[in-house]
Amino acid sequence: MPRIERSADVTWEGNVARGSGRISGRTGAFTELPYSLPTRIGQAEGKTSPEELLAAAHAGCLAMSIAGELTQADTPPERLDVTCTIVMDEVEGEGHQIVAAQVVVRSDADVASVLEAADAGCPFSTLLRKAGVDVTISL
Amino acid sequence: MPRIERSADVTWEGNVARGSGRISGRTGAFTELPYSLPTRIGQAEGKTSPEELLAAAHAGCLAMSIAGELTQADTPPERLDVTCTIVMDEVEGEGHQIVAAQVVVRSDADVASVLEAADAGCPFSTLLRKAGVDVTISL
Repeated sequence: MPRIERSADVTWEGNVARGSGRISGRTGAFTELPYSLPTRIGQAEGKTSPEELLAAAHAGCLAMSIAGELTQADTPPERLDVTCTIVMDEVEGEGHQIVAAQVVVRSDADVASVLEAADAGCPFSTLLRKAGVDVTISL
Repeated sequence: MPRIERSADVTWEGNVARGSGRISGRTGAFTELPYSLPTRIGQAEGKTSPEELLAAAHAGCLAMSIAGELTQADTPPERLDVTCTIVMDEVEGEGHQIVAAQVVVRSDADVASVLEAADAGCPFSTLLRKAGVDVTISL
């Protein structure tokens, strides 16, 4: 595989408590998604956050990795549903950190037989585990 | 700060090479963003990818952290522009991994005086560094 580079742009205006930002992917796939401190740490009110974006990235990477392993096993999936929940919490002496990624996979395909390989081949699972995040995947 | 949980849902259909997926944040801030293997590793064709979503997360987190430090210094920013580029590349013996996060910050505010504290206080910078990712921030 080639080297891959992907970029995103954020504009923030105002102080941290009452200001807000807008998040755009350079591909144009998503543009000017609003976010703020109150909606990041409290009720989301339909606004995204860095944690939701990471949940999306991990779920997307793992779904593709599972599809890859199932394809290699000659049983490509008709459909996979993958949900990831990112948990951020206070860590003693380290402040607020990302502590867990809880993944649930649902499919009619035989995901159980390829899950270990798919997880090992997902760069986001690897990244999170290297960082000490508790990654759990259930079927 | 409270414990924060944020979730995203991905549906994948078909084999890995010709199938595709759709990525949605549970808040509803973004829904059914299409992605695929060819657009992840080649020309993006307007489609997102896990790497773009991580770039968005890191830029969003760091922008808020810089705004926080500037606010604490009684110089809240009128505007900050933060771009993050995530680089994925082959790592000897480990396959394709996320190897770098290259951040550029532009602002009329005195970002230089708070950048070290903002970076240290950004959970995404911490996560990436713990995972061995080369995080660079330039003004």
